[in-house]
Amino acid sequence: MKNNWIAIDWGTTNFRAFLMQGSVQVSQINQACGLLSIEQGQFASTLQTLLQPWLEQHGALPVVMAGMVGSQQGWHEVPYAELPCSAGDLASRTLAFQTPWGSPAWIIPGAHGMSQFGQPDVMRGEEVQLLGLAALYPASRHIALLPGTHSKHAAMRNGEIVSFSTFMTGEVFSLLTQHSILGRALPEQQDSQQAFLLGVKTTGEGAPFTHLIFSARTRRLAGEISDAHIHSYLSGLTIGYELQAIPGGQHTWVVGSPSLTARYQLAASQMNLELSPVNGDDCFVHGLWQLLPLLQGNKS
Amino acid sequence: MKNNWIAIDWGTTNFRAFLMQGSVQVSQINQACGLLSIEQGQFASTLQTLLQPWLEQHGALPVVMAGMVGSQQGWHEVPYAELPCSAGDLASRTLAFQTPWGSPAWIIPGAHGMSQFGQPDVMRGEEVQLLGLAALYPASRHIALLPGTHSKHAAMRNGEIVSFSTFMTGEVFSLLTQHSILGRALPEQQDSQQAFLLGVKTTGEGAPFTHLIFSARTRRLAGEISDAHIHSYLSGLTIGYELQAIPGGQHTWVVGSPSLTARYQLAASQMNLELSPVNGDDCFVHGLWQLLPLLQGNKS
Repeated sequence: MKNNWIAIDWGTTNFRAFLMQGSVQVSQINQACGLLSIEQGQFASTLQTLLQPWLEQHGALPVVMAGMVGSQQGWHEVPYAELPCSAGDLASRTLAFQTPWGSPAWIIPGAHGMSQFGQPDVMRGEEVQLLGLAALYPASRHIALLPGTHSKHAAMRNGEIVSFSTFMTGEVFSLLTQHSILGRALPEQQDSQQAFLLGVKTTGEGAPFTHLIFSARTRRLAGEISDAHIHSYLSGLTIGYELQAIPGGQHTWVVGSPSLTARYQLAASQMNLELSPVNGDDCFVHGLWQLLPLLQGNKS
Repeated sequence: MKNNWIAIDWGTTNFRAFLMQGSVQVSQINQACGLLSIEQGQFASTLQTLLQPWLEQHGALPVVMAGMVGSQQGWHEVPYAELPCSAGDLASRTLAFQTPWGSPAWIIPGAHGMSQFGQPDVMRGEEVQLLGLAALYPASRHIALLPGTHSKHAAMRNGEIVSFSTFMTGEVFSLLTQHSILGRALPEQQDSQQAFLLGVKTTGEGAPFTHLIFSARTRRLAGEISDAHIHSYLSGLTIGYELQAIPGGQHTWVVGSPSLTARYQLAASQMNLELSPVNGDDCFVHGLWQLLPLLQGNKS
């Protein structure tokens, strides 16, 4: 095997692939062709088309995938690994197969456990980012926040994922801005740091969420927020509400895109929380890079 | 003036009119022609068409209106009355005018105040139901829950509204079932009391709302809820979450349609809360019936 391989995060709405040379990203493909846009039976041919330039140049490279591609709606369903969950646990439950064009391929399982609030909870893809975080910044404990459509709050000990909780922050923000009365008949929206921080601050009163969000309407009626800043205010409310669940006084990583982690850091600065940002792509590829030798070892 | 008059609850999506004889409902009209379906400038002609049968029979009856008809998007904007707010306060801020066909007409103002969680809050229409509740069941104190798209929790003292808080329960339920991943690709839904009560019970753990709702996905994945019962489970989650804000150990009225109040009572029975149901229409017309002499007194 050459030192090149391909790391893929294939989610519900997006496809992201990284051409790797060892642990270094060489090239990247982002396409809005998540699972929902792929007809059943078309995963292999879609993937081959997407990766064509790299395959032509490098041959049938190993392909390591994570994310919703391993779900019921994905290419091959890969049952969740149970918490607590180490790199070895994930590797031993990974699905190995060969693509029609001859690449060795793997789909990493997601993880399943009970959240800190006693709910059953699941993730697919973030478990890889967590492994990458622990590899990049070794420590006996990690608390990490992975913001997004379905944000995850996770705890790790000695590199094992021990618990996590999902917050539907990004999706709820979309629902409120696109489909609720709070987002109706708005002019073009402008980003307002002031409105965002007012939203964050408003979450500090302990109001129940379904009450809290109505303040986007009443503050607008009262002229406290401009019609052009409603999305910023709702962003502050939803992110601030999520951050209320992070206990203060402990070091917390925030893993994601630079723009999203900066937004969470801004919110946290109003709440006596300190978040250290880490690039989510770096964590993802480093997580898969940790797993790759274990996968190749299993296979041989 | 004869003893007949017309009570109207004109909201965002529905129009409801009651032909009254004193305090007794004689006839009723329900139409799905809320404000959003009325073009600006067409309120009077729409109303005349809707009321035509009653106007032909009884002449230009007095018309007393409440609800979103008095909002910025309504027929005539009527500024909110501030809390604390009595029947006299509402009557003195009511807009009086004459319709093109000669009916004396009034639009009752909504109410504005600070919620129990320190948020600005508003209502339009429910203030009339609260006056009706206090008239039907006189007491020095009332705690009342008015469930709906935007549920209200209100406190009254000596017949005055002293505080209230809005919970966007009904709207959030619609968003989650119609537009979120939780409601995606579901078969035809069946009502399940078991799934509803599981949802209610799940709210007892104190989980943040945006985490709580993800359990509709994870319990479905785990086979704990049938695909046909997801709406019932989400109904239990959203109603149960709202009811967590009601302190136990005090008598609470639930004011609404019999089907909706029964649903809230069922949820409350799991939570050591006792809710006494009252018909929302009865409260509405009795509230306006309390106001009518004050309005006619103001006018003369």
